[in-house]
Amino acid sequence: MSGNSFGRLFVFTSFGESHSDAIGGVVEGFPSGIKLDFDFIESELDRRRPQSRYSTPRAEEDCPQFLCGLENGITLGTPLAFVIKNTNVKKTDYSNLNNLFRPSHGDYTYYCKYGLNASSGGGRASARETAARVVAGALAKLFLKEFDINITSKIEQVGGIDYTACGKQAEDKLQEALAKGDSLGGIISCTIDNVPAGLGEPVFAKLSAALAYAQMSIPSAKSFEIGDGLESCKRFGSQDIDHWKEGGGTLTNHSGGIQGGISNGEQIVFKTGFKPAASIRTMICKDHDNRLHTIENKGRHDIAPVLRAGVVVEAMSALVIADFIKMQQTNKKI
Amino acid sequence: MSGNSFGRLFVFTSFGESHSDAIGGVVEGFPSGIKLDFDFIESELDRRRPQSRYSTPRAEEDCPQFLCGLENGITLGTPLAFVIKNTNVKKTDYSNLNNLFRPSHGDYTYYCKYGLNASSGGGRASARETAARVVAGALAKLFLKEFDINITSKIEQVGGIDYTACGKQAEDKLQEALAKGDSLGGIISCTIDNVPAGLGEPVFAKLSAALAYAQMSIPSAKSFEIGDGLESCKRFGSQDIDHWKEGGGTLTNHSGGIQGGISNGEQIVFKTGFKPAASIRTMICKDHDNRLHTIENKGRHDIAPVLRAGVVVEAMSALVIADFIKMQQTNKKI
Amino acid sequence: MSGNSFGRLFVFTSFGESHSDAIGGVVEGFPSGIKLDFDFIESELDRRRPQSRYSTPRAEEDCPQFLCGLENGITLGTPLAFVIKNTNVKKTDYSNLNNLFRPSHGDYTYYCKYGLNASSGGGRASARETAARVVAGALAKLFLKEFDINITSKIEQVGGIDYTACGKQAEDKLQEALAKGDSLGGIISCTIDNVPAGLGEPVFAKLSAALAYAQMSIPSAKSFEIGDGLESCKRFGSQDIDHWKEGGGTLTNHSGGIQGGISNGEQIVFKTGFKPAASIRTMICKDHDNRLHTIENKGRHDIAPVLRAGVVVEAMSALVIADFIKMQQTNKKI
Amino acid sequence: MSGNSFGRLFVFTSFGESHSDAIGGVVEGFPSGIKLDFDFIESELDRRRPQSRYSTPRAEEDCPQFLCGLENGITLGTPLAFVIKNTNVKKTDYSNLNNLFRPSHGDYTYYCKYGLNASSGGGRASARETAARVVAGALAKLFLKEFDINITSKIEQVGGIDYTACGKQAEDKLQEALAKGDSLGGIISCTIDNVPAGLGEPVFAKLSAALAYAQMSIPSAKSFEIGDGLESCKRFGSQDIDHWKEGGGTLTNHSGGIQGGISNGEQIVFKTGFKPAASIRTMICKDHDNRLHTIENKGRHDIAPVLRAGVVVEAMSALVIADFIKMQQTNKKI
Repeated sequence: MSGNSFGRLFVFTSFGESHSDAIGGVVEGFPSGIKLDFDFIESELDRRRPQSRYSTPRAEEDCPQFLCGLENGITLGTPLAFVIKNTNVKKTDYSNLNNLFRPSHGDYTYYCKYGLNASSGGGRASARETAARVVAGALAKLFLKEFDINITSKIEQVGGIDYTACGKQAEDKLQEALAKGDSLGGIISCTIDNVPAGLGEPVFAKLSAALAYAQMSIPSAKSFEIGDGLESCKRFGSQDIDHWKEGGGTLTNHSGGIQGGISNGEQIVFKTGFKPAASIRTMICKDHDNRLHTIENKGRHDIAPVLRAGVVVEAMSALVIADFIKMQQTNKKI
Repeated sequence: MSGNSFGRLFVFTSFGESHSDAIGGVVEGFPSGIKLDFDFIESELDRRRPQSRYSTPRAEEDCPQFLCGLENGITLGTPLAFVIKNTNVKKTDYSNLNNLFRPSHGDYTYYCKYGLNASSGGGRASARETAARVVAGALAKLFLKEFDINITSKIEQVGGIDYTACGKQAEDKLQEALAKGDSLGGIISCTIDNVPAGLGEPVFAKLSAALAYAQMSIPSAKSFEIGDGLESCKRFGSQDIDHWKEGGGTLTNHSGGIQGGISNGEQIVFKTGFKPAASIRTMICKDHDNRLHTIENKGRHDIAPVLRAGVVVEAMSALVIADFIKMQQTNKKI
Repeated sequence: MSGNSFGRLFVFTSFGESHSDAIGGVVEGFPSGIKLDFDFIESELDRRRPQSRYSTPRAEEDCPQFLCGLENGITLGTPLAFVIKNTNVKKTDYSNLNNLFRPSHGDYTYYCKYGLNASSGGGRASARETAARVVAGALAKLFLKEFDINITSKIEQVGGIDYTACGKQAEDKLQEALAKGDSLGGIISCTIDNVPAGLGEPVFAKLSAALAYAQMSIPSAKSFEIGDGLESCKRFGSQDIDHWKEGGGTLTNHSGGIQGGISNGEQIVFKTGFKPAASIRTMICKDHDNRLHTIENKGRHDIAPVLRAGVVVEAMSALVIADFIKMQQTNKKI
Repeated sequence: MSGNSFGRLFVFTSFGESHSDAIGGVVEGFPSGIKLDFDFIESELDRRRPQSRYSTPRAEEDCPQFLCGLENGITLGTPLAFVIKNTNVKKTDYSNLNNLFRPSHGDYTYYCKYGLNASSGGGRASARETAARVVAGALAKLFLKEFDINITSKIEQVGGIDYTACGKQAEDKLQEALAKGDSLGGIISCTIDNVPAGLGEPVFAKLSAALAYAQMSIPSAKSFEIGDGLESCKRFGSQDIDHWKEGGGTLTNHSGGIQGGISNGEQIVFKTGFKPAASIRTMICKDHDNRLHTIENKGRHDIAPVLRAGVVVEAMSALVIADFIKMQQTNKKI
């Protein structure tokens, strides 16, 4: 019901602002009796950590502290709560933004919603909250590992350039953005292997719809495509049908592993598009009286959120699949 | 929780198979004291009715019967349940499909999920269920009318061709599909006017995420884009920022009316892509032993679902906005 | 979320007013592949039907029409929607109540909530809605039958008199109420056999709490006691502990089959108390200007709701246990 | 959906075991712009703290640390997460219970549910978790204060003795239990003032049902009575009707402020019964092979949970009323 919880049976509740004492989360529905692989959780957070010159210099250790739900590292079946301290908060970087609304940010819309907004760092709208998603997603991946389900992602496009085929061109464009104090958009593709047929619910809770919801909840997400996505929309049906393979499976996978909203046992494939970061070097902000102010941005930001988004895309996918696996456990013919 | 309900406070529960006695729904959260405009509800269903030679010849009267929740046409605030009879069921059209799984349909995935599936007509996976969405969406629109919120849609592309600018070309392509017993994909764009700033929840229940979920739950939906969508993903940030207008509002609307997941008061704009219908004239189906069978399709289907999808796209948008309006009513500072 | 739905995985959505065209419901989460025993459903409705001179003369056929979710009587796993026509509506019986609020009824509170209320028959607050509960409960019982879970109830007290031991005295008191145009309260006890250990969730969604919620939602319910209930509250711990039996189980069952909110495999036992019907022969009603009016009641009512409540008590219990069975299916160690 | 969350719009998610690093919670739906009164929250926790010789000697400071959701003590409208350290854990007190199931505790039922259970202290089944309820309840009370809604409770009975009228006798009985290493049950009554008419939903989510659910979720709760409760069940209707008062309100309040499941503006009154603590000095436990072992209990426990339950009873009531206030905000005629 709440905007801060995700899932029905494998449930992740997220909390924390960019500049509050901590962010964190509560994961419910994780099965009992599983030894948690903390190294894996750490390694997922490492993937999210800024690693290139195109990423924010705000590098935090992001070591999640698990408070409960396990004994000697073995899960009890009860809620797993974790906290990640916000150690590297530099509120002063935002001091020149006091009472200003940055363009294309959440500052103004949060203010419209709540009558006030976090005075620095973007509050809940900051991409900082995705660190908690990555921890919860890592837990979901550990759950899915028991079913041999595997999730991977890769950068498909940066600034409209094919990242796999034309890496050099893409790097040049990133370099250009960096030099100009600008930012760049891009696209991530994600694949999920070994998803059993039968996941997804009729009508509203289609697996494709749930994946779309999950992806579009990631900061800066602008588009979602399942399977061949927009390409399918241009085709004749005869070009888009996935013909049956003798012996099982399909010859093609235009559907992206989901038909009628339910998984068919093929690889699940989708793409998520991200806009360029709205935080660039020079920003024209407005104050509460609608007066404009040109501001040099001192906050620490990514040039291209897409470069670090892969692990978040996977985390949200893992949460969806884990939830639908649990739903399908209730759906067995007796 | 269930896959057949949509919304949190303005809740629509859908029921019915393509070939069951009836389909229908229950709408909860509709305010009391409103005189229902049944003509409007009928006119919305009329928009969904097959009207061109490209649509299914299954033309049903689709007259919803309201069972409760109102007295003398005035709502009581209690559940509004409605039933639409399935009067024009021709199960014999499907007799040659008995025990066969059509390719790229829900037949096989429903079978994987439930261990059986509706023997004719696609069951819950049939687009027949969208008639109930249109009734619920019409109720949501009547609710939104009280706030002057208005939703419109148009066909943007058919078979990859710009439908507004190149209508003749698009018609030719439709004609080609019809002649060949083939089908075509396309894209709908939708705009929502007068949405107040402040709708949407932080983190997961972003307004954009909820719209994506709603749209991707429509049969044949393949893609969702908010605002400039994929175009944004190719841009520099400096090209994508919506600059403030002196006096209020923004100069551009690349964001599509949603920033940080929350409406900013601008027009909400998004696009939904639909694949071509998977039901074409000649289909290679498989049986329960994975043997292939070539079948001439006698069922009644649309060539291009996109042609009739607009009213469904709007209906799902109306349900989302109605739900978020109610959520925001709980969010007031005291 | 909504007040008209019950359950998380085995979900019943109820609709309909006492004097609307129909009441009915939608049941989701019923497994596929089960042949529905319609005779059983009918027999449950028969148990609810007024049978004695102490019950309302409004005897309706109450034949539920199932609209969807099954083929040849076999469930598809999709929503089962049913409708029960309100055939025996006599609005004229309520004509002298127009715009009057009866005391201790829902008329006034519904008016406070919605700004209007059903003009006759009590609307959603009428016990008429329990017919839909009985149908949904019968479905839940059919589901539980697959697990050999059995639910029975009996009248424990009428008007403070032990109904089993002092039947004659209780009958005399009922006769007295009938003669005076008065009504009587009473208590139902309910037992559930063969519930596996492990049902119920920690902290909030305790099985005992869910049963209490279900029972207290029945019209006129005033009290709920699990196991020995109020007797336990008077005891020393040494008198209330259920000691282990060598070989398994417990020697006593003061707990009523639930410990720490989770079933322990013993018989589940609870009691639900019902107040006397608020509809008696002479009622002092108030109008919208707070003026009092003495009214002779012509509507048809039960003298002692407790006499017919058993099947509703069981129905709500069946819905709870069915839901928790499904929840526990998701709780398996992998 | 999850067993660890309570409420729909004012949502409290609880986490933590008795002997984990910490317990805590997340509260969503708390309005923005309110200065939190931390002294009040502390004072509520003080009321829960063991104060008499009849209470557990485990006295922890129970200072909740708020991690997020506020700036300078003023709420942002976003989730308020708090953590209470488990500082006074003495696992050794439980060393003789290793692998033993105490009678009438949650040890065995949690084991049946999860295949394992917390090795000491009762895990989630321990009354330790109620400290988090008290913090969340204090937040709910701060919210309700804005509406002048006030909640109080008192001990009604201890060991079957009227606590108000016969305090000395009750003290003697407590003394007897203490001397014998035994425990005692009791009853709390609770009143809620200034609840506006109109709270509660028809049919299932009746306000009385929600209060029952909330109360029966408290550890050791055995019974719930709304208004006159079991007394009403013994009466004639003519004795139980709350007659209208000229000018507004009712002459009596047998209903306890709720009619047809919806508040009528009168004082809300209910009673919750608690069994004696199951932890007494000598306990016959069983091991995994169903062999019995007599154990001298070294863990720290209350003799009579009822003595400290008042603040928890109030906390759960506050959470219910806060949630229903928010629900009713969505129910306004436009």
